Amino acid sequence: MAKGFTSREQDYSKWYNELVVKADLAENSDVRGCMVIKPYGYAIWEKMQAELDRMFKATGHSNAYFPLFIPKSYLSKEASHVEGFAKECAVVTHYRLMNNPNGDGVIVDPDAKLEEELIVRPTSETIIWSTYKKWIQSYRDLPILVNQWANVVRWEMRTRLFLRTAEFLWQEGHTAHATEKEAVEEAEQMLRVYAEFAEKHMAMPVIQGVKTASERFAGALETYCIEALMQDGKALQAGTSHFLGQNFAKAFDVKYASKEGKEEFVWATSWGVSTRLMGGLIMTHSDDHGLVLPPKLAPIQVAIIPIYRQDDQLEAVTEKVLPIKKALEEKGISVKYDDRDTYKPGWKFNEYEFKGVPVRLAMGPRDIENGTVEVARRDTLEKELVSLDNVVEHVEKLMIEIQENLYKKAVDFRTENTTEVSTYDEFKEVLKTKSGFVLAHWDGTPETEERIKKETKATIRCIPLEGEKVAGKCVFSGKPSTQKVLFAKAY
Amino acid sequence: MAKGFTSREQDYSKWYNELVVKADLAENSDVRGCMVIKPYGYAIWEKMQAELDRMFKATGHSNAYFPLFIPKSYLSKEASHVEGFAKECAVVTHYRLMNNPNGDGVIVDPDAKLEEELIVRPTSETIIWSTYKKWIQSYRDLPILVNQWANVVRWEMRTRLFLRTAEFLWQEGHTAHATEKEAVEEAEQMLRVYAEFAEKHMAMPVIQGVKTASERFAGALETYCIEALMQDGKALQAGTSHFLGQNFAKAFDVKYASKEGKEEFVWATSWGVSTRLMGGLIMTHSDDHGLVLPPKLAPIQVAIIPIYRQDDQLEAVTEKVLPIKKALEEKGISVKYDDRDTYKPGWKFNEYEFKGVPVRLAMGPRDIENGTVEVARRDTLEKELVSLDNVVEHVEKLMIEIQENLYKKAVDFRTENTTEVSTYDEFKEVLKTKSGFVLAHWDGTPETEERIKKETKATIRCIPLEGEKVAGKCVFSGKPSTQKVLFAKAY
Repeated sequence: MAKGFTSREQDYSKWYNELVVKADLAENSDVRGCMVIKPYGYAIWEKMQAELDRMFKATGHSNAYFPLFIPKSYLSKEASHVEGFAKECAVVTHYRLMNNPNGDGVIVDPDAKLEEELIVRPTSETIIWSTYKKWIQSYRDLPILVNQWANVVRWEMRTRLFLRTAEFLWQEGHTAHATEKEAVEEAEQMLRVYAEFAEKHMAMPVIQGVKTASERFAGALETYCIEALMQDGKALQAGTSHFLGQNFAKAFDVKYASKEGKEEFVWATSWGVSTRLMGGLIMTHSDDHGLVLPPKLAPIQVAIIPIYRQDDQLEAVTEKVLPIKKALEEKGISVKYDDRDTYKPGWKFNEYEFKGVPVRLAMGPRDIENGTVEVARRDTLEKELVSLDNVVEHVEKLMIEIQENLYKKAVDFRTENTTEVSTYDEFKEVLKTKSGFVLAHWDGTPETEERIKKETKATIRCIPLEGEKVAGKCVFSGKPSTQKVLFAKAY
Repeated sequence: MAKGFTSREQDYSKWYNELVVKADLAENSDVRGCMVIKPYGYAIWEKMQAELDRMFKATGHSNAYFPLFIPKSYLSKEASHVEGFAKECAVVTHYRLMNNPNGDGVIVDPDAKLEEELIVRPTSETIIWSTYKKWIQSYRDLPILVNQWANVVRWEMRTRLFLRTAEFLWQEGHTAHATEKEAVEEAEQMLRVYAEFAEKHMAMPVIQGVKTASERFAGALETYCIEALMQDGKALQAGTSHFLGQNFAKAFDVKYASKEGKEEFVWATSWGVSTRLMGGLIMTHSDDHGLVLPPKLAPIQVAIIPIYRQDDQLEAVTEKVLPIKKALEEKGISVKYDDRDTYKPGWKFNEYEFKGVPVRLAMGPRDIENGTVEVARRDTLEKELVSLDNVVEHVEKLMIEIQENLYKKAVDFRTENTTEVSTYDEFKEVLKTKSGFVLAHWDGTPETEERIKKETKATIRCIPLEGEKVAGKCVFSGKPSTQKVLFAKAY
């Protein structure tokens, strides 16, 4: 365990916060609720972005950019949207500062008040649909398949690095379609894209499902989601995809002329994932030794550390290391050879372990004599001596093995921590003693959902889309239910 | 000339605005001064970003992310910085909306007033240096070589798409160094990176130089810049790199312990380019037929259009086209085969011409008979028939040729429109009749600079770094001058 580092057992929440800061991922800024994403954390986010962007483009989407500001009145145009989003947000009221007449710094110029206040976007449906009105006339202008990478602001009162911050980075897809069917298919397709990204790249298993009416996005007819299970037994909503029906088209009067010349309202979806995924990634794999990263998202996949006393030893090691580094890089593996003389090998070992680098190689004079190199994997913390001749192949295989092992471990953890219950007593007992995902029948009413939430703090994370659907009776009310739904306490 | 499209001759400014909108690059949004960057325009920006990002990383920089908001008091910490930046900016004063008691929409909740107002960043020196204070203790923490891709807001009164908008996208590099020499070298290195990017990728020749004291960035000791010449004879500042000395380190009390254990203030640089580059790209190459793009930044490098009447003809053409498309793509060339039946070939020809696609191929039944394909280049508007067997090689060569030709054309234009003058009468005459860059001796005083600006509207764009430095006499005052400097009217 790293010195002075809280274990998960001791205090899970403290463990998380310390990990994020000590692994150089992010830190709180001087601005309440806003984080600084540090270079190492941002490099992981960039890897996520690159892969997601590739997947979006492979499914026909293009990127664009819409204004940061939304006129206040726009939020009110879609009735349920304003309820969900217009409350806690940053409001720009003035556009100029002036020197303080008392000579002390600057003050807001009272003469520079905006006629209509601007809201820093909490999400962009309204500004985008007011734009789509100009872009859409006929069926030939559809579909519009656009995504935006952007910052958004929601004035959260209780914030946590990556998981809930006032400002966060995300992508928001906003698509426009001629038919309901096409829009539903788009929303479902993007859910699958998110699930594939989470599982194949983040090595984070997710349950795909739909939200209950009360948990839906403000303005959506259906909200699809992926839900992951964290190591403390709490669920994390990792991505959502919304079928918005014609709500925003009606709010902003966006119609198209069909092939038959009929005027129709346009159908919409929106979908997003954010820097919150960083929180999911961290909490899925990391341990009491620090961060653990799946190779596919690790900015540094292999760290090589020379062991030496004198300069000539370093030279001899470097001579052996450089061809290995080059060979690994030619296979697309990112390597850092850390030959800084300002830090000792032990310090470096701790550093790369804590930062979750998947594989560490160490080589000293004795290794050169023996023709070996020490290979340590971060996921299992196992070390072994590997022949210099085999090390490139060996590391290449490890990249795949570690990625698979992390996913398997996470699936096993989720399996162990998913409980099917048939009575409300069992339900409460599981949530009290074990936590995790709880599968239970629910009668489909918001009243039951609300009562259960009040009494247990567990919410319906989703109505799963996969798996067998067996009818039964609601654990709370005893009324009929068509399938078990997924409950958990959640982030 | 595209129908209803203003020519440069008729009205240059109108030509530019129409071009930006009609080529689907950007448009004004409903929010004053903020633009929407449309998918086609954004795709060009993404290509710029990708290359710049690669260049930044190749010179050792990493990306990070800092808050959108800056506490108002931070702007006042560096005296000249607040003068330059604290005035026209978006001010967040409240963090909550509430339902209007009269039932009509939402209003700002008067109870949710921030204790200290937040400024939407116009640039991030202050928030970043308040962060660096936490990151820097010893010489081992230096240098910090960080870049950020972000949106910034400056409340401009007169805005123009890409060239001057209230919100724009940019990158801002912020580096911290142990010595003055290292910081100056960094600022100069990034100037060279910008110049290389402008010339090799945008095919836009630039003059590298330093700004006069009065044109320096607020808080800088030296501002380096690249200046390009647009087709209307006005200069465009395309990128700046600042040596900030210890100004921000002193304002935010950022010191490091040297190897010798001495406490020293840290040295700083910052450097940035923005979506303004899009304006430079457009105005350097485009003509009265629309946009012209250098191949290296064209989202679609080759458009292929089938000419057909019946479906079987389309099938025959498609059969010939697909292998060509594949072969081009294997060479890294992006190809769009536009076989939509909702638009006629003539419409498509205009479309890709107007959007600046470097090469257009057209193929119909007669081409199949003759084993040829029509190849049109956007830069010269020349068409030729090329044998099917050679077309891939031919297009590959064209990619290089067009890139070089555009650069050469722009250099020739600049040469023709750069005038060296020895008297103030000549100076005024050139600015009145011909415009362009004017090289003239200047006595080095802000007074002369200001007088010339008032009388002619020309400003000193930069003191060029390259070329021979010959002493002479100021065209205005007759006082001694060490070298000619670059004057122009500017965007």
